[in-house]
Amino acid sequence: MAKELTPRSEDYSQWYNDLVIKADLAENSAVRGCMVIKPYGYAIWEKMQHELDRMFKETGHCNAYFPLFIPKSFLSKEADHVEGFAKECAVVTHYRLKNNPDGSGVVVDPEARLEEELIVRPTSETIIWNTYKNWIQSYRDLPILCNQWANVVRWEMRTRLFLRTAEFLWQEGHTAHETYEEAEEEAQKMLNVYADFAENFMAMPVVKGVKSATERFAGAVNTYTIEALMQDGKALQSGTSHFLGQNFAKAFDVQFQTREGKLDYVWATSWGVSTRLMGALIMSHSDDNGLVLPPNLAPIQVVIIPIAQKKLTPEMNEKIDDIIAKLRALGISVKYDYAETKTPGWKFAEYELKGVPVRLTIGPRDFENGTIEVARRDTLEKENVAMEGIENYVKDLLIQIQKNIYQKALDYRKTQIKKVDNYEEFKKEIEKGGFILAHWDGTAETEAKIKEDTKATIRCIPFDTYLDDDKEPGKCMVTGKPSACRVLFARAY
Amino acid sequence: MAKELTPRSEDYSQWYNDLVIKADLAENSAVRGCMVIKPYGYAIWEKMQHELDRMFKETGHCNAYFPLFIPKSFLSKEADHVEGFAKECAVVTHYRLKNNPDGSGVVVDPEARLEEELIVRPTSETIIWNTYKNWIQSYRDLPILCNQWANVVRWEMRTRLFLRTAEFLWQEGHTAHETYEEAEEEAQKMLNVYADFAENFMAMPVVKGVKSATERFAGAVNTYTIEALMQDGKALQSGTSHFLGQNFAKAFDVQFQTREGKLDYVWATSWGVSTRLMGALIMSHSDDNGLVLPPNLAPIQVVIIPIAQKKLTPEMNEKIDDIIAKLRALGISVKYDYAETKTPGWKFAEYELKGVPVRLTIGPRDFENGTIEVARRDTLEKENVAMEGIENYVKDLLIQIQKNIYQKALDYRKTQIKKVDNYEEFKKEIEKGGFILAHWDGTAETEAKIKEDTKATIRCIPFDTYLDDDKEPGKCMVTGKPSACRVLFARAY
Repeated sequence: MAKELTPRSEDYSQWYNDLVIKADLAENSAVRGCMVIKPYGYAIWEKMQHELDRMFKETGHCNAYFPLFIPKSFLSKEADHVEGFAKECAVVTHYRLKNNPDGSGVVVDPEARLEEELIVRPTSETIIWNTYKNWIQSYRDLPILCNQWANVVRWEMRTRLFLRTAEFLWQEGHTAHETYEEAEEEAQKMLNVYADFAENFMAMPVVKGVKSATERFAGAVNTYTIEALMQDGKALQSGTSHFLGQNFAKAFDVQFQTREGKLDYVWATSWGVSTRLMGALIMSHSDDNGLVLPPNLAPIQVVIIPIAQKKLTPEMNEKIDDIIAKLRALGISVKYDYAETKTPGWKFAEYELKGVPVRLTIGPRDFENGTIEVARRDTLEKENVAMEGIENYVKDLLIQIQKNIYQKALDYRKTQIKKVDNYEEFKKEIEKGGFILAHWDGTAETEAKIKEDTKATIRCIPFDTYLDDDKEPGKCMVTGKPSACRVLFARAY
Repeated sequence: MAKELTPRSEDYSQWYNDLVIKADLAENSAVRGCMVIKPYGYAIWEKMQHELDRMFKETGHCNAYFPLFIPKSFLSKEADHVEGFAKECAVVTHYRLKNNPDGSGVVVDPEARLEEELIVRPTSETIIWNTYKNWIQSYRDLPILCNQWANVVRWEMRTRLFLRTAEFLWQEGHTAHETYEEAEEEAQKMLNVYADFAENFMAMPVVKGVKSATERFAGAVNTYTIEALMQDGKALQSGTSHFLGQNFAKAFDVQFQTREGKLDYVWATSWGVSTRLMGALIMSHSDDNGLVLPPNLAPIQVVIIPIAQKKLTPEMNEKIDDIIAKLRALGISVKYDYAETKTPGWKFAEYELKGVPVRLTIGPRDFENGTIEVARRDTLEKENVAMEGIENYVKDLLIQIQKNIYQKALDYRKTQIKKVDNYEEFKKEIEKGGFILAHWDGTAETEAKIKEDTKATIRCIPFDTYLDDDKEPGKCMVTGKPSACRVLFARAY
């Protein structure tokens, strides 16, 4: 079969690449590191956007749009920030092409050189804080709760579809507040929104926590993160929310008159998720037959495939139309694939590959029996269900599938969170993949040594407890120095 | 009053600039020619996007995403296309910054020069047709009906918020077809979608037609357009749909196997509308008090402002909440502005400026009378309406306002479509603004002369008739040579 995937057990990485291509989610473009998101992949991203956008608005945020370009001097204003992004900036230096005098085509017009180079935004803190400066005079102007849906560019050397691309799509929230406390609360609130989205829409359990100083966003005081575990035992950072303190307000001189009539710098947060979530979604649930999509994000929730199509009478076709109408009336997205150019077998494989949660198969014999064959993508189970009332059965089944996919991922993760107290054991365990909760002395040196020895990084210091003694003090597995609590290690994407 | 606008009669252009700024729609950014779209402006754009996206999907299109960057060599492949865009291209030449050895900040790293420069897309035909090449082998792969919501960059020298900016937001549809006829039909279908949107959502009448060769999109065989008339008598091109023939398929060698087993080049269309529509919306309806928004695109359709707020009893407040709930249940977006820091008078002016279609004012005395004061933004009329059933009254009123705004714009346009047969008269009439239907000999030379003499351009050769003899042959007003029908002239944005 043309669309066969490399099995996960053979080569997980190749399986992922195969799946992204064969399920028509995305492909590499002619521009190094930039992807084309194909219609089916984009339809999933649109569903993600739709839900996230709703959640942002329900928490009081509104959308706005800021320039694609950032003057080079802006990027330099926050020292850590420029340090973090300078090495991966796409730089616009000219604004015109002209015909090559030798007739060989167009060349950059050397006379159209920009006075100051423009950076294609890798993230928008600097241009936004330069804008907020004019929006904020007094505490009455606060809070500002803006989000932007945008493309950003980070010039990555090794790229992978969705997981790491030079250009990617994302949303970036940028908020401005009167007080430390309010900004902290906002940063954590948005982390919870991300966790809620990951768990209830992506069916992907996540560990919420705070990053170590080394892993912080460039320019942040604290970075909060949601970390998910992929089927190969590697972690994937799925969303981050940053408490930026007054760093950007100071860099762009954004002061406001407080309620007490004093001047103070504004407190800030920023938070984002990107098309990387597509990679997380794919790797959390899919199998060797293809995608497994949670119903809450599936562009097609139910596919109906006719069998012995030519023997379907007008009455039978009418009944099928009626079933489709009833499903749609319940808000279920249905595709009826009646194309006669493909066999039912081909279609079964195709929609399995595409991860459609429920497949209904209907042929003349089903009308005799008054039943329909219902196949669920998550378990690959099939059963015959009474035709009457099938719509309610399917509605309940979709809810059940959503729950089951989440539970399966959660059960898997439970088996993959290990407690380790000894560095030799850590080195052995980390080879097997999964999360490891271990003690660490809190220094960047020890963190760097662990990374160099094992390629594992501290994913976060979790907020919740996962084992019996996570939050109890102990001794660093490397140095033996005191540790306040266990931290979460893994190899990561 | 701080927010007063320059009256239109005094300086229309300044009135527009004032309005965009003071109604919080957009502002200039620190990056030359790039705007910041502020939350209120973006909320209107989001409503436009929402409706257009629905209309595109209902006509069988799906969304996808293509790279921001276009290799310079791609742009050159279609001769007219590169000719049209070369002079306004933002060019990425480097992919890294580094610390300046003199410690003065970051500089472009000369060692990180791209082998081939990348153009920030001014439009995406080239990168998309390079992609479609791999998607299309046979007629079975056709049609492809993709749309993309994206930002594009055209380095304009003179910019104006929304109307002409270096970066703007838009959608661009790119379709691929088996036959000339099918592609032509698609191009016209999408023009009709744009006209439908303009008239039924923006309440803006448009003239549909085809562009003269001079005004065609660079690379198109035919460009169809919708042209609207602004209050100052200038035309604004509001959307275009292009029949691209086989130009891009030939440039990128995209051939397919036909039903007859032959090889042929694929037929193409592209079509787009942009944030320029925001400028069209503002200039079609607004007045010296501020924006006038059609209810179908207003982010806030109804604002409720309390009077003598402190005297409102708990029962009265409960009743107001009840009215809000009833309005919302009818799908109406309502803002209840109970802020005590502003006077009712300030609020009246503010929501007039923001173009909220309906204002309800409620104070203790209204409860005695069982009425509410209802003010409509379009006519500035006020009346007292019975509190009971107010929600249905408002619902009907919104429909009425939508119709009235359209009718007003249509009536204005009717007075502004003139028939002229004499070039001297044309020169006089064009000074007064408005559309002129006149005869033209069909040559680029005459078209250029008219433009040079009068700054008027051929907006289109209209599809519909507006006068008694539009479609009858005549003689060119300039050269006296034969003309097949009248064409539409105006000075334009």
